[in-house]
Amino acid sequence: MSSIYPATMRRLINELSKLPSIGEKSAGRLAYHLLTGDTSASNDLAEAIREAVERVSLCTVCYFISESPICPLCQDVRRAHDVLCVVEKPADVIALEKSGGFRGIYHVLHGVWSPLKGIGPEHTKISELLRRLQLDESTLAAERDPLKLPLQEVILATSTTVEGDATALYVAGLVEELGVKVTRIAQGIPKGGELEYADELTLNLSMEGRRSL
Amino acid sequence: MSSIYPATMRRLINELSKLPSIGEKSAGRLAYHLLTGDTSASNDLAEAIREAVERVSLCTVCYFISESPICPLCQDVRRAHDVLCVVEKPADVIALEKSGGFRGIYHVLHGVWSPLKGIGPEHTKISELLRRLQLDESTLAAERDPLKLPLQEVILATSTTVEGDATALYVAGLVEELGVKVTRIAQGIPKGGELEYADELTLNLSMEGRRSL
Repeated sequence: MSSIYPATMRRLINELSKLPSIGEKSAGRLAYHLLTGDTSASNDLAEAIREAVERVSLCTVCYFISESPICPLCQDVRRAHDVLCVVEKPADVIALEKSGGFRGIYHVLHGVWSPLKGIGPEHTKISELLRRLQLDESTLAAERDPLKLPLQEVILATSTTVEGDATALYVAGLVEELGVKVTRIAQGIPKGGELEYADELTLNLSMEGRRSL
Repeated sequence: MSSIYPATMRRLINELSKLPSIGEKSAGRLAYHLLTGDTSASNDLAEAIREAVERVSLCTVCYFISESPICPLCQDVRRAHDVLCVVEKPADVIALEKSGGFRGIYHVLHGVWSPLKGIGPEHTKISELLRRLQLDESTLAAERDPLKLPLQEVILATSTTVEGDATALYVAGLVEELGVKVTRIAQGIPKGGELEYADELTLNLSMEGRRSL
């Protein structure tokens, strides 16, 4: 029924509503803002999309977002290249970097294994991870060069959702072959959280994962 | 801290976060979608923004969004041009048209009078409304051409918020000079609403505005 709007406005609303978590009403509001607000800012946005689409791709090593074939994180020699952290999304890398608690390297899966949604390992960068770890079929076990990949630890930092857990277990099973330590991020009560309001599963996990002080 | 992202991605996030109700996290998610999803759709969005900014403006009569100087609603001779409905936003026109309950013409204010936010009548299309109704200072009362503007009724359909009410009262006070009927949309219990859950003010308004059956 937004057919009363002119065609170009309708097209803009249509394109905006394709974005994740933007419904038709939000798209209408955004379009209104783009057309009646500061239109030079709107043109800046259009140009920013076009330029980023043109110049940004994924790091060929870790699949983080990068303008160069190898991202600055992978190129940084001050980082521990023997500790590899596996995450779902580039935003998870940003979150971990912000926390300052990790100084190793990453592998971004761009998804999780979700059989119910029909998303298999082949839809994520899991096979790229296996190739990176020389665990893919094209590399025979005998040919593996431990010096080339002197890994101490693989940290599985996928979400603590059902899909994130399943992905972590799947990757863990494959990486075990390497004889490398495989760990999963801790699950428990978040900082500042009250036990009273925590769900039962989180409470159980926080008990199971308790550590001596 | 998203400074780990490449510059073009940061610029895109920055431009996206200028949009209303899009915070930095949402902007990051949108940027990720634009860059790693279907990039031809991203370019389509960029092009849709640019084209709409270039071609869309406001109707010179009613200030609804239009590609032509006078919008199709104002040009439609089948509509009642003697009943004028004053609304805040183009989306309100869409909502009223969708309801099918109004077949007159519109005036879009593009804002409400909000002294607390420093938004005066001059920041909206109120003065344009007065000019349209020949109520501005440049038109002397004696010069008014009632034939040119044979208005039967002005309906004030601004939001039922404090600002919307204030704007309606302000416009009503000015329009009264015309000797034209001025009405305000009904306020009360929405269709499907239960009295138990209605707020006290709405309940009082629904009592005050009761009609005989």
